[in-house]
Amino acid sequence: MRKVDLNADMGESFGMYKLGHDEEFMEFITSANVACGFHAGDPSVMKNTVTLAKKFNVQVGAHPGLPDLQGFGRREMKLTPEEIYDIVVYQVGALKAFAETVGLRLHHVKPHGSLYGMAHRMEDVAEAICRAVKDIDAEMFLYIMKKGVIAPLADSMGIKTVFELYSDLGYDAEGNLVITRAHDAHEPDPVAQRVRRMVIDNSVTALDGTEVSIEGNSVCVHCDTPGAFDIVRAVRAALEQAGCELASPEM
Amino acid sequence: MRKVDLNADMGESFGMYKLGHDEEFMEFITSANVACGFHAGDPSVMKNTVTLAKKFNVQVGAHPGLPDLQGFGRREMKLTPEEIYDIVVYQVGALKAFAETVGLRLHHVKPHGSLYGMAHRMEDVAEAICRAVKDIDAEMFLYIMKKGVIAPLADSMGIKTVFELYSDLGYDAEGNLVITRAHDAHEPDPVAQRVRRMVIDNSVTALDGTEVSIEGNSVCVHCDTPGAFDIVRAVRAALEQAGCELASPEM
Amino acid sequence: MRKVDLNADMGESFGMYKLGHDEEFMEFITSANVACGFHAGDPSVMKNTVTLAKKFNVQVGAHPGLPDLQGFGRREMKLTPEEIYDIVVYQVGALKAFAETVGLRLHHVKPHGSLYGMAHRMEDVAEAICRAVKDIDAEMFLYIMKKGVIAPLADSMGIKTVFELYSDLGYDAEGNLVITRAHDAHEPDPVAQRVRRMVIDNSVTALDGTEVSIEGNSVCVHCDTPGAFDIVRAVRAALEQAGCELASPEM
Amino acid sequence: MRKVDLNADMGESFGMYKLGHDEEFMEFITSANVACGFHAGDPSVMKNTVTLAKKFNVQVGAHPGLPDLQGFGRREMKLTPEEIYDIVVYQVGALKAFAETVGLRLHHVKPHGSLYGMAHRMEDVAEAICRAVKDIDAEMFLYIMKKGVIAPLADSMGIKTVFELYSDLGYDAEGNLVITRAHDAHEPDPVAQRVRRMVIDNSVTALDGTEVSIEGNSVCVHCDTPGAFDIVRAVRAALEQAGCELASPEM
Repeated sequence: MRKVDLNADMGESFGMYKLGHDEEFMEFITSANVACGFHAGDPSVMKNTVTLAKKFNVQVGAHPGLPDLQGFGRREMKLTPEEIYDIVVYQVGALKAFAETVGLRLHHVKPHGSLYGMAHRMEDVAEAICRAVKDIDAEMFLYIMKKGVIAPLADSMGIKTVFELYSDLGYDAEGNLVITRAHDAHEPDPVAQRVRRMVIDNSVTALDGTEVSIEGNSVCVHCDTPGAFDIVRAVRAALEQAGCELASPEM
Repeated sequence: MRKVDLNADMGESFGMYKLGHDEEFMEFITSANVACGFHAGDPSVMKNTVTLAKKFNVQVGAHPGLPDLQGFGRREMKLTPEEIYDIVVYQVGALKAFAETVGLRLHHVKPHGSLYGMAHRMEDVAEAICRAVKDIDAEMFLYIMKKGVIAPLADSMGIKTVFELYSDLGYDAEGNLVITRAHDAHEPDPVAQRVRRMVIDNSVTALDGTEVSIEGNSVCVHCDTPGAFDIVRAVRAALEQAGCELASPEM
Repeated sequence: MRKVDLNADMGESFGMYKLGHDEEFMEFITSANVACGFHAGDPSVMKNTVTLAKKFNVQVGAHPGLPDLQGFGRREMKLTPEEIYDIVVYQVGALKAFAETVGLRLHHVKPHGSLYGMAHRMEDVAEAICRAVKDIDAEMFLYIMKKGVIAPLADSMGIKTVFELYSDLGYDAEGNLVITRAHDAHEPDPVAQRVRRMVIDNSVTALDGTEVSIEGNSVCVHCDTPGAFDIVRAVRAALEQAGCELASPEM
Repeated sequence: MRKVDLNADMGESFGMYKLGHDEEFMEFITSANVACGFHAGDPSVMKNTVTLAKKFNVQVGAHPGLPDLQGFGRREMKLTPEEIYDIVVYQVGALKAFAETVGLRLHHVKPHGSLYGMAHRMEDVAEAICRAVKDIDAEMFLYIMKKGVIAPLADSMGIKTVFELYSDLGYDAEGNLVITRAHDAHEPDPVAQRVRRMVIDNSVTALDGTEVSIEGNSVCVHCDTPGAFDIVRAVRAALEQAGCELASPEM
């Protein structure tokens, strides 16, 4: 039986500011990417989010971002590779401590926003992220896309990767994800069918109509879009109907 | 042979801003309290500081502070105990990751500035800090002063404590440390003799002239005061002359 | 005809984080206190908020807070009076520029959260705020409560004050406002009747049941509480029924 | 008699962190570009810096930067033009208030670091900055280089420009300034001669040896480089020997 992971970005609130619907969303996913305080999240939100993940048996990963709360980590910044390494170690270390204080082992690292985009385009950024993951815990998974410079690099460095499929973001004709600063609303059924095709048929329709081949075992769903609950429910149902088991990769 | 630890606050630079003389100072101390990015320090400074500590065989501790870079963690803030717990876990976790990436085990936690002062005065703050230390790694030492509410509390929670003596800050007539926002300059010899008396005779002259009894095995020296090198050299010499071995407590 | 002002805290969103319902709320109020980026708000939010206020003919005031975004300016911080002066000049200056770029003159200053509380309790904080207001534009109003150390001080310094009445926060038996970190929900009718009594009868029931005398010409309503629209509508209706004209004080 | 301005970046300290030698440097310059808290500076530093400038009859300009204290505004960030406009209005407004509280009128705006570089390369960034300057006070000068997209744009928008010459940074063969994250040390005499050639002969030797034509009436000197005092003294002497009067442009 094909195992498929359902991951979502969680813990994106900050102080008085609430974002997402973590509590309600946690029951639908198998892996949570938890913001680490640079682009979103704060220490209290991080603790509450890992506590919530534990309650729902959801695997906890770190979701480090660029140091830009106002831009939500979605404004590209020119950091040196060493600075990238350093901000990843810092953020992953902070979240790892929260995970461990509630008795969980950190499961994965997934770069956020522009850092994610940069990791797929720039080899030195990719190398810095891979090195940080390896230096902290070489058993952790790295969540990335198969397409881009980071996948072969991670492979060559012996890092365990999980390839992602994006349910609610567009792809261009080359199969690259199109990362926008705000997320659009979508209808549940088309998203679910799109996910089914990505997972089962390894194919997705790009923004320009081209069919692009794609491959992955973890579907990313966003919980800050309108109608997010209906979407995640539809995605789960479509995957189960297609004979998939929803489960996080085992460390 | 009496073992005495010499600890100093390290890694207090931030970005372009340089503070202290870590590289030159590291050879004189046995334990480093490394800033964790909230009151001082940044991810790159943290990595460089733990790397430097390793080179000089200095034990690395986390030095978490209040979230106030401009105030250098020296402006008291009314956080809830849970917020205190959360900022300590966050900062200690981040530094622990840096220590581990260079092959060191985190040795201790020492609260910084106003957080240190609050920990000695407010039971709920003290409890939150102790709980964070215990939840992250119960084998780590907690650097505090014997006088204040935190020492008996840490003891009752089974936390290993190291009591500090301050070479260059004043004490009041009750033996409480007087924490100021800026550190004054001092002459090496009087400081060294004062330290010798604190360590060997368990006594210190308070700011008002009273003799106060005091007890500790770790002397804190500051490296951001004028003449810091001469002071630390004089303190080391005085302790060695008094028959002490300079060494960090073993985990 | 008695003129009564209706003021609300506005512009409290930050980056991706939305707070309050400024667009919908602006039509109900006569004066807006706009966050200035320290406890809430960012440059883009500030521009949009003053633009919106202009559209609705609402007077714009600056709402400076403590430098603590995570705590939303509601965690007391021990700043020196000079630091208080400096953060007020900085924030008011920034907002003043936005007001002037859309053709408005800055109408007032109202300290936010803990800074507001401190201004009413601590004479040196009060003095610093008054001095900042006077130095920037001595014609601006200062929004405060009649009870507390700041009112007589502002008066002695020649600053024009507007006394506030709080529709949705509690008072203690001495008539001091009880500032909480989160705001509770309320029913429209009791709030409207309470406001009517404060404005017309100069009386309010304290949290312990005591009747306290109170005086003011500006009613503060919060727009981040549940049911805020119904409350502000009910308050307006009650004031108009009582024969008041809703208008901001004229500079 | 040819008037030449000598400008320097000032007020770059932050909290406990000291940078530059403002007090000693102020007597040598005619215009100060004061950091506004985003890449460097804080409200207290800003107040002290404008006070110091007033004492030395130095004109005060705002030196707004990207919102990145750790990177000192030298790490490029992809902000939208509207975000650029907003952060410039915010920072210039804050500094303007400090200038006015000590009785000075804000004299100019000079973008800092990467924002300065972007302003010369990207038309939409340039337009946003020009618009902010115009909207705040159309009489202020904009300090830029003649080469780049911003000069003709500023001209077409009716903004008064002052062209800068860099005493201690390199130029490439096209006459573009090469902005580095750290500033190198230089010898006073070669710098002074280089400045003399730029001012009098309108020529500079690029990093690759090419002679490049250049034009400007304000020489920028940095005060955070080693030997900065000797450099500024040598530059002043060279300019005076060449028959120039050192003076800030009059509003």
